[in-house]
Amino acid sequence: MTITLEELVSLCKRRGIIFPSSEIYGGFAGFFDYGPVGVEIRKNLLDWWWDFFVRQRDDVLGLYPAIIMNPRVWIASGHVERFIDWIVECKNCHGLYRADELLEEKGIKITDYSPEALSKLIKEHNVRCPSCGGELSEPRKFNLMMETYIGPIKDETSIAYLRPETAQAMFVNFKLYVTYARNRLPFGIAAFGKVFRNEISPRGFIFRCREFEIAEIEYFIDPERANDCPYFHEVDKIIVKIWTKETQKKGEEPKEMSIGDAYNDGVFSNMWHAYWVGKSLEWFSQIGISLEHLRVREHLETELAHYALQTFDIEYYFPFMGWKEIEGIANRTDYDLKHHMKFSKEKLYVPLSGRKVIPHCIEPSWGVERTFFAVITEAYTKTSDGRVFLKLHPKLAPYIAGVYPLLSREPFITKAREVHKLLKKKFTCYLDVSGSIGRRYARADEIGVSFGITIDHQTLEDDTVTIRFRDTREQIRVKISDLVKTIEELIEKWE
Amino acid sequence: MTITLEELVSLCKRRGIIFPSSEIYGGFAGFFDYGPVGVEIRKNLLDWWWDFFVRQRDDVLGLYPAIIMNPRVWIASGHVERFIDWIVECKNCHGLYRADELLEEKGIKITDYSPEALSKLIKEHNVRCPSCGGELSEPRKFNLMMETYIGPIKDETSIAYLRPETAQAMFVNFKLYVTYARNRLPFGIAAFGKVFRNEISPRGFIFRCREFEIAEIEYFIDPERANDCPYFHEVDKIIVKIWTKETQKKGEEPKEMSIGDAYNDGVFSNMWHAYWVGKSLEWFSQIGISLEHLRVREHLETELAHYALQTFDIEYYFPFMGWKEIEGIANRTDYDLKHHMKFSKEKLYVPLSGRKVIPHCIEPSWGVERTFFAVITEAYTKTSDGRVFLKLHPKLAPYIAGVYPLLSREPFITKAREVHKLLKKKFTCYLDVSGSIGRRYARADEIGVSFGITIDHQTLEDDTVTIRFRDTREQIRVKISDLVKTIEELIEKWE
Repeated sequence: MTITLEELVSLCKRRGIIFPSSEIYGGFAGFFDYGPVGVEIRKNLLDWWWDFFVRQRDDVLGLYPAIIMNPRVWIASGHVERFIDWIVECKNCHGLYRADELLEEKGIKITDYSPEALSKLIKEHNVRCPSCGGELSEPRKFNLMMETYIGPIKDETSIAYLRPETAQAMFVNFKLYVTYARNRLPFGIAAFGKVFRNEISPRGFIFRCREFEIAEIEYFIDPERANDCPYFHEVDKIIVKIWTKETQKKGEEPKEMSIGDAYNDGVFSNMWHAYWVGKSLEWFSQIGISLEHLRVREHLETELAHYALQTFDIEYYFPFMGWKEIEGIANRTDYDLKHHMKFSKEKLYVPLSGRKVIPHCIEPSWGVERTFFAVITEAYTKTSDGRVFLKLHPKLAPYIAGVYPLLSREPFITKAREVHKLLKKKFTCYLDVSGSIGRRYARADEIGVSFGITIDHQTLEDDTVTIRFRDTREQIRVKISDLVKTIEELIEKWE
Repeated sequence: MTITLEELVSLCKRRGIIFPSSEIYGGFAGFFDYGPVGVEIRKNLLDWWWDFFVRQRDDVLGLYPAIIMNPRVWIASGHVERFIDWIVECKNCHGLYRADELLEEKGIKITDYSPEALSKLIKEHNVRCPSCGGELSEPRKFNLMMETYIGPIKDETSIAYLRPETAQAMFVNFKLYVTYARNRLPFGIAAFGKVFRNEISPRGFIFRCREFEIAEIEYFIDPERANDCPYFHEVDKIIVKIWTKETQKKGEEPKEMSIGDAYNDGVFSNMWHAYWVGKSLEWFSQIGISLEHLRVREHLETELAHYALQTFDIEYYFPFMGWKEIEGIANRTDYDLKHHMKFSKEKLYVPLSGRKVIPHCIEPSWGVERTFFAVITEAYTKTSDGRVFLKLHPKLAPYIAGVYPLLSREPFITKAREVHKLLKKKFTCYLDVSGSIGRRYARADEIGVSFGITIDHQTLEDDTVTIRFRDTREQIRVKISDLVKTIEELIEKWE
């Protein structure tokens, strides 16, 4: 069944997944709150990410950096000068718009994101102010970093920035981390947390927010060994649609190929870059996003961020808005470390058997809300008879189990409480006693609860309960004493 | 052995626990980053908090709200007008200081925090500018909220605030949560996340930061049933030092008493307030903070925040800086909901069998960095022979296990890798092959690794390894096939 954005937005609010901030004050564009169900799914998603990319690896170290850093960081990094959008102003009503968005909304394809090219397209297609039809100005710079003031004086000397990425903290702490990593290469630093971007027009539900979370790894490699990745065999067989910049420019469709073949064809800036694209795809696949719904798109030269040599977006196909970026994997080279060396006068290199190596850096960077959005979209299932359920992996489900007395009276309720108490020590679960059993199942399905545990008449006789499976509605009967073990096995075997 | 702040700060940086932000740019006062070890301890601490106060309860719902909210929230809440410190300016060098801090630094006791009383004390004790000795101005208001601008225009109309607490999100989302809680009372909302306070003088390592994290619960109760707490028996026997405002004013010491007796003596504004003080103490005790090192101090009338009827601080005894607040438990009454009703025109009540109840609110609010600081301080142990270890509960330890080949060569290394791979599926752990085994144990002890698993000569013969206990340095020998189960049991039985 088709799925609409409206259905998803409505479910997310009604069932406490995610909804606009400050709604009793008319909301606040670009800011969202996770509700009691969403907060659990978000936690599970980030825990999984942390486990996969940090705890299960020997080469990635965690970091939880402050949002506000010394403002010199953002001068050195180039963000004060170059972290910008090109905006146009209506000469009549003075409305402000992002030039690229205005064009894309009209279905005009952009192959060059320079201000000159954007201006040319606006004129060619006679694009005018969407609100009053007025003439538009030439594109001008708009810096996306939000500012604040630290200390009692509010002037130029006390400006600080709300970070637009966590990456800079990894570069600024690089020297410390070289010692934590005991002077070896390669190693990575991983962080996640809130970032802020002063978007002119936030849009697409949680797709483009002003406050959001990113999860990033800065993976530092020896540039002399950029094609020497010992883990490449873990990912080289993964097959995915890859859309190189050449193919895009020729107007051709993405090509399905393996990461290994693409690397051999020279698609990636180096082997580690290919590896991190592959590893990202592996994780997406584990968390339940079909590779069929993902594609890897290379940035055009004019799209590249100021620090990037080459970037790939992993895009997810949202049925209601098409292919959209949920992760970017950039090769930042030694751009950042070199700039910080220059500005801070610190020596940022790794001593490697006589060489002083300034590493290059591959950066996989996930939008947490976007990944969350893709997970929910992928999980949203509507059957032909109108049943709605979230087909979430148990490791992402807000609750592993709902516990239900068949009838809302004693002795069913007391027995259900016992079972609930037993399960709670091991799994996220809740007790639901109100409404018909069918309604309770339906409520649980809508938020993706993995298993329904029902206490029925037979329970009172032989201490067995039924386990109902969300996706198939099939039921099995197990002894209460075997329940924890059975659920553990079901989770372990999940595919 | 005595412990100094310097030792702790040094350990925290050297071993990647927590350190000042942006150090290569000279740091940035009041901002800190958690390193690879600290990030794990912080995660374990917050996971435990979430499990104890949200997942294991049936009456508390989670929330993960945006940091930036509609600015009208902060007008309605009273923060724009009243979330202030009283600061004094030096008439000579124009240095700015918090009046209360200047007095406290001189050892002058404050029993009235009003600007008039602060001014009087400054004059009485002839307190002068600590930097140049100049005369100080009368105290004036300084708002602690940091500001930013949203959207392309930077003026009064686009100001927004970085939240100084998460609580307001709970009040603003109250209406939604009444439906999620299915119109019942009591229920709580729990959230944690970054907050920002523009402190004039951040100090005490991570004790007073400008950016920090809080973990809060807003627990909504029916004011007609404020003394009807069905869980009170869980906490009433807890004995702790309680320092009421009367005792403080009389210059007497705190009295040791049970939560139950204190409630009966009328110490708390109501039974739910007493319960949440007790429940907080129970959690602190579980995470390894001795009740001996905690005391409950009531706020004086002049100290109370503008929204509070009565507040208790839970203070921890830091050996190097004395008793300091790590959690506050306030009775906010219906102050916030009533203000938001007035400003938003929304109806914020719970329909309860014919009554429209505007609940009162008890708010336990933890400083995450402060709790983290107390945990590390409490765990820091130095034996008479100079050995240093962090006596952390395994549920807080950055790693459950370190895996060590006795000798850094084959076949020990390969065997150690196997054991590491086996453990990694279940526990946080790492492999350390370099340096003498004694040095590897010492490194692990310093960051609180729970168990050391050593692969020695006997391992190669009979597939057994030794488990070394951090706190006692005792060792036991177990079969590799029993290792996971043994460690699981050791964690379960930990006290």
